[in-house]
Amino acid sequence: MMDGMNRKILLASRPKGMPDESNFEMTHGPIPEIKEGEVLIKTLYLSVDPYMRGRMSDAKSYAEPYKVGEPFVGGIVGKVVESRNEKYKVGGYVEGRLDWAEYNVSDGRMIRRLNPELAPISTNLHVLGMPGLTAYFGLIYIGEPKEGETVVVSGASGAVGTIVGQIAKLKGCRVVGIAGGEDKCAFLTDELGFDAAINYKTTDNLRKAIAEVCPNGVDVYFDNVGGAISDAVMSLINFQARIVICGQISQYNLEKPELGPRVAGQLLTKSALMKGFIVTDYAKHNKEGLTELSQWIQEGKLQYRENIVEGFDQAVDAFLGLFRGDNIGKQLVKVADE
Amino acid sequence: MMDGMNRKILLASRPKGMPDESNFEMTHGPIPEIKEGEVLIKTLYLSVDPYMRGRMSDAKSYAEPYKVGEPFVGGIVGKVVESRNEKYKVGGYVEGRLDWAEYNVSDGRMIRRLNPELAPISTNLHVLGMPGLTAYFGLIYIGEPKEGETVVVSGASGAVGTIVGQIAKLKGCRVVGIAGGEDKCAFLTDELGFDAAINYKTTDNLRKAIAEVCPNGVDVYFDNVGGAISDAVMSLINFQARIVICGQISQYNLEKPELGPRVAGQLLTKSALMKGFIVTDYAKHNKEGLTELSQWIQEGKLQYRENIVEGFDQAVDAFLGLFRGDNIGKQLVKVADE
Repeated sequence: MMDGMNRKILLASRPKGMPDESNFEMTHGPIPEIKEGEVLIKTLYLSVDPYMRGRMSDAKSYAEPYKVGEPFVGGIVGKVVESRNEKYKVGGYVEGRLDWAEYNVSDGRMIRRLNPELAPISTNLHVLGMPGLTAYFGLIYIGEPKEGETVVVSGASGAVGTIVGQIAKLKGCRVVGIAGGEDKCAFLTDELGFDAAINYKTTDNLRKAIAEVCPNGVDVYFDNVGGAISDAVMSLINFQARIVICGQISQYNLEKPELGPRVAGQLLTKSALMKGFIVTDYAKHNKEGLTELSQWIQEGKLQYRENIVEGFDQAVDAFLGLFRGDNIGKQLVKVADE
Repeated sequence: MMDGMNRKILLASRPKGMPDESNFEMTHGPIPEIKEGEVLIKTLYLSVDPYMRGRMSDAKSYAEPYKVGEPFVGGIVGKVVESRNEKYKVGGYVEGRLDWAEYNVSDGRMIRRLNPELAPISTNLHVLGMPGLTAYFGLIYIGEPKEGETVVVSGASGAVGTIVGQIAKLKGCRVVGIAGGEDKCAFLTDELGFDAAINYKTTDNLRKAIAEVCPNGVDVYFDNVGGAISDAVMSLINFQARIVICGQISQYNLEKPELGPRVAGQLLTKSALMKGFIVTDYAKHNKEGLTELSQWIQEGKLQYRENIVEGFDQAVDAFLGLFRGDNIGKQLVKVADE
C-alpha cells in the first residue's frame, strides 16, 4: 500500500441551471490497495468536457447520470504506479474513463496503454482521444464534406471544433468558425487556417455576418452549441445540407427547455439531414480514426492548443469555466508531473 | 383543331395564411392546336396534394413557386386525344405534371405512358405515382424500418400516410397512425391493418396516448404534419431513431413561423437522425419503387382509398379541403370520363 492521500471529487447535488461549486464535494481518503489483476493509476491529466454537464442531471440520456454522493467520472491520463496485471507495467502511461481522483484502481479492461513517443501524452485526451474521434466521426461520417463545399462550425475554438475545422480544410472545404471572443477568432484564422471566424458576442446580426462569409451558403454545419447561433446558420443551409449535432452547450444549463424556430420545414424544403451522435456510435472505426489523426499530427497538418490549469483542486473551476467560455482549445487539469 | 372550350385554373394571388377561393381564377379559352412532335391530352383526373400549398408562396424552396396569373401545375392523368408524336397513340393514357386545365399540350418529354391493365389509371396519381414513391422512398431509404420496430405515421390517413403504414406492416413493424377523425382512425385499423390509431382531435394528452400504444418507444417517425403532433412523438423516440420529414401540413398556412421545442438536444441524446426529402431525390430508384408497389397491389397486400370529387369546377374546393382534413386516402378530382 502506498503512503499518502487520495482526493476525490464527488457530485454533491444536481444543479438547477448553471452548476456552481456547491454541486461538488472533495473527499480525502487513503490510497487504495490493489488485488490480483488490478493496477493503481496515478492521475496526471483530467479531461474537462462539456458533455459532463449532461451527466450531472438525472434525465435519461445516452450517458448514465452521475450519482449524487459518488465520484465524477471522466477521461484521465495517468501513470501505472503499482501493477498486479501483466498487461500493464509500472511506469507505463494509460488513458481511460476513471473517477476524478488522484489515484484510481482498474482491472485493466476500461483503460488503454499509451505510446508517449507518438505525441505528448495529454493529446490522448483530445486530438488523439475522445474529442478528436468525435470531430473525425461527426464530420466524416455525418457531415461527409466534399471539396469546395462550405463547412460552418460552432463552438469552433473548443477541443472538438478546432479539429473539425482543420479536417474540413484538409478535405478542401471553405471553413467558417463561430466562437466567443476576438482572441479565439484570431486563433482560428491565424493559427488553424480557418477561412473566416465570427465573434458571436460582438455581432449584432449573426445571420447577415454568416451569409457574408458563406457566399455559397452552408453545406455542412457542425454544431457544438445550439440555440440562437444554430438558428442563424440553419436559415442559410443549402439543398441537401448535413447538420451534425455534436453538442448543445448553450442549452445545457437552461432551467427549462427553450423554444426556437422549428427546423423540420427547413430540413424538408432543403432535403437536408440533421443527425445527433455520440463517439461510441462509431467505436468500430476507432482504429481508422486514430490512425488518420496520428498521421495528420505527425505530418504537422493538425494543430492543437491546450488550456492547462494546474492542481487537482482547480478541477471544478476549470469545469465551470467551460460555460464561461474560458478555454481556447482543449481544457485540461494537470494533477501531477509526468 | 378540336371544337370546344378549355378551362384553366390560375393562381390569382398569393395567400396570406390559409388560402381561399379568391386566390384562384378560372379562365376559358380555345382548345390549343398541336405542332409536330406534340400531343393533346384531355384531363381525366387531377391530383390534389398538400405540397401545392408551398408552391403558392414565393419563398425559395425545392419546387419553383407558381407565378401569379399563370396556371396551377400538378399531377394529371389524361388521355391522348390528338397526336403528332409517334411515341404516343391517340386513345393512350398518360400521366405527368401538367397545368390544371381540361386540355394540355405536351412535347412528350415530361409525361409517361400508363398501362391501364395493371391497375385503375387513377392509381398512377397515388399508390403507383408520386405519393406512393414518396412513401416508399422516405420509409425505406430514410426510415429503414426493421422487423419488430415501432413506426409512427402522422397524417396517416392521407395518400402518403396510408401507404407508409402498410409498407411498415409488410416489413414486420408495429404501426401507429395519427389522424384527425374517428372514421379515419377506424379506416386505418380496420381496413389497413394498423396496430393502433390516435384521433388527435379528441385526445387531450397526445404524448400519453402515443406512449400507451408504443410501449417500446418510437423507432421511426414518418412525419407529414409537423407542429404539436410532432412535438409529442419526438419526446418518445428511441436511441438511433429515424425521423422522416415528408410534409408539414400544420405549418403551411401559418402567417409567421411558429416556435416549438428545439429538437437538436433530443436528436443528440438519442443519436437520432432527422431528414427531409422530396421524391425526386430518389429518382434513380423510381423503377425499383414502382415495381415493388405494383407487386404489392397485385398481391392484394396494399389497400388504397380514393376520395373523388367530380367536376373541374370542384378542383379548388377539393384543394382547400386538404387543409380542412376532408379526405380519407387520396384526394382526386375527376374531370372527365375515361
